[in-house]
Amino acid sequence: MSLQAGSYTHQEIMGQPQAWETTLQAAEQQIAPEDWLDKTSKLAYTLFVGCGSTYYLSLSIASLWRKLVGQPAWGLPASEVWLYPDYTLTTQAGDGLFIAVSRSGETTETLRALDIYQQRGSGSTLAVTCYADSSLARQAEHVWLARGAEEKSIAQTRSFTSMYLLLQVGAMLAAGRKDLLAQLRALPEQFVQLVGKYEVLVKGLAENPRFERFIFLGSGANYGLACEAMLKMKEMSLAPSEAFHFMEFRHGPKSVVAPGTLVVALPGEAACQWEAQVLSEVRALGASVLAIAENGKGVVADYMVELHSGLDELGRRRLAMPFLQLVAYYRSLYRGLDPDHPNHLDAVVRLE
Amino acid sequence: MSLQAGSYTHQEIMGQPQAWETTLQAAEQQIAPEDWLDKTSKLAYTLFVGCGSTYYLSLSIASLWRKLVGQPAWGLPASEVWLYPDYTLTTQAGDGLFIAVSRSGETTETLRALDIYQQRGSGSTLAVTCYADSSLARQAEHVWLARGAEEKSIAQTRSFTSMYLLLQVGAMLAAGRKDLLAQLRALPEQFVQLVGKYEVLVKGLAENPRFERFIFLGSGANYGLACEAMLKMKEMSLAPSEAFHFMEFRHGPKSVVAPGTLVVALPGEAACQWEAQVLSEVRALGASVLAIAENGKGVVADYMVELHSGLDELGRRRLAMPFLQLVAYYRSLYRGLDPDHPNHLDAVVRLE
Repeated sequence: MSLQAGSYTHQEIMGQPQAWETTLQAAEQQIAPEDWLDKTSKLAYTLFVGCGSTYYLSLSIASLWRKLVGQPAWGLPASEVWLYPDYTLTTQAGDGLFIAVSRSGETTETLRALDIYQQRGSGSTLAVTCYADSSLARQAEHVWLARGAEEKSIAQTRSFTSMYLLLQVGAMLAAGRKDLLAQLRALPEQFVQLVGKYEVLVKGLAENPRFERFIFLGSGANYGLACEAMLKMKEMSLAPSEAFHFMEFRHGPKSVVAPGTLVVALPGEAACQWEAQVLSEVRALGASVLAIAENGKGVVADYMVELHSGLDELGRRRLAMPFLQLVAYYRSLYRGLDPDHPNHLDAVVRLE
Repeated sequence: MSLQAGSYTHQEIMGQPQAWETTLQAAEQQIAPEDWLDKTSKLAYTLFVGCGSTYYLSLSIASLWRKLVGQPAWGLPASEVWLYPDYTLTTQAGDGLFIAVSRSGETTETLRALDIYQQRGSGSTLAVTCYADSSLARQAEHVWLARGAEEKSIAQTRSFTSMYLLLQVGAMLAAGRKDLLAQLRALPEQFVQLVGKYEVLVKGLAENPRFERFIFLGSGANYGLACEAMLKMKEMSLAPSEAFHFMEFRHGPKSVVAPGTLVVALPGEAACQWEAQVLSEVRALGASVLAIAENGKGVVADYMVELHSGLDELGRRRLAMPFLQLVAYYRSLYRGLDPDHPNHLDAVVRLE
């Protein structure tokens, strides 16, 4: 046990600026831009594979990859690749790339999924992990390390955003967009300013006894981040929480909205008009809305985190994560739980 | 309003054997096996697109397509294709097929998604719907109709399973597996027998005040069905309900399991050993388990619907749906709601 409930988690959430800096340096040492561009330009498809947090990371990065690189890319749960390979993988013409993401590099399902892909011999493999000496790092052809992003807590926070950062760099370089890297360098400083400005707001929402149910909405590359926020809330605070694509929420799930629901929204630039309409509808049904966006233009919300980053959406996306992590962290403490040691969970899922 | 709460929904759930028979006849009239096999054998990829129930249908059928046909196939929310096309679609070499699924054929997002795909000019298009004179049927190049599957209720039941049936036929014929069609012909009769045998069990579970939270687990092609079951429960009964891939459930969401949780499991043949382990774990945490499976071999559950269909997994899958629909239907009545008219929802989502 940690000495004080949640002390590791808090340290890891707040340590993200440092982890991002060391990881960005590591990315520059580990990825040779020209080789990577050459290799990826020939790909027919890319698969991103993980479990839990790293599955949601995979969903978001695959979406970003489609947008930036314009090639087919999909995020998959490792267990589905392992246990249902014929329902999940297919024969595809051309070169493929299989990117396995695991904080520990020891998650059984991810190792087995990598086995399956290697047995089928359909392409090359890359491990993204925090540990150089892990089984995953040894088994994959190539390795990218998120340096300084290791964690003592069970719930992933800085490891999530740091492995995300590595793959953001990968997507930008595969798109020949070196110019975007400067945006990533601005994030550690912006993190410090934004958390300084908004931590009190987020803590207040987490400790508001009125909220019994949390809904996270995001579309495009924000959908995977909304899912990760849902998981953080479940893991740390055990609060009922769900994630949906913005417009999908109206096709049924909206039926459960009531006063006591906090909808946390990650609107995107492309569809802000439609997403704002969804938020107006849930507010009319009595829910409260927290929106995390570059600015409040066009969005009516009860609470707002305005990033004012001045950065492109492709670079700034990760800035929403600390607030999604903090709302779960403070909710956990408020409920008398220990965010470092969630209910029924282990840090690494190993199967016999 | 219907005369009696839920009378339309009940009629539609129980009318599935007739709807399946007329839809199967319609499939045989509408699909020329040799032409279809010839056309699909040249495809580089197939996309299945819908909203809410038909999005979940798309997830399941895409998985079945990968398994049967061995070609890349993906299920996508129509709104993501429409509002985030660059994050969702990519340039792919070769012929593509875009299958838009909508009960009414009037869902705005699905029509707009079809627009987007047609503007990009990347392949051919097929509408799957219950209405021949709908906008979707007019806009797509080809149409398959689920005849006799129209509904008066808001929540989709027989339309879901009938449109699913059409696409099962499509996947089987695209795989050159005409032999499997005989299995589909056996389902209406099996439905009658199974519902006769198990309706009381399912009604009892729905009316058990002990259950406050419902979790649906399924992997491979069962994942989309688990999602649809989650949606039925939300729409009709407003009960907290969530769906997960079996093994993903252990990576965090398991933290919320407690006595009062009913886990409804759709185990698959390929991974029954591992899935049974997940069920043992949630039972040890105090949850109850209802398993719906061909037989109880290897699965320890508190309640069991054994299909004993003697059919291949590829054909019998849809037999689980009536029980997933009935548990939501009876839960709704038990809570004094009207399953025909869920909270805050409309039968067709039209946007201005």
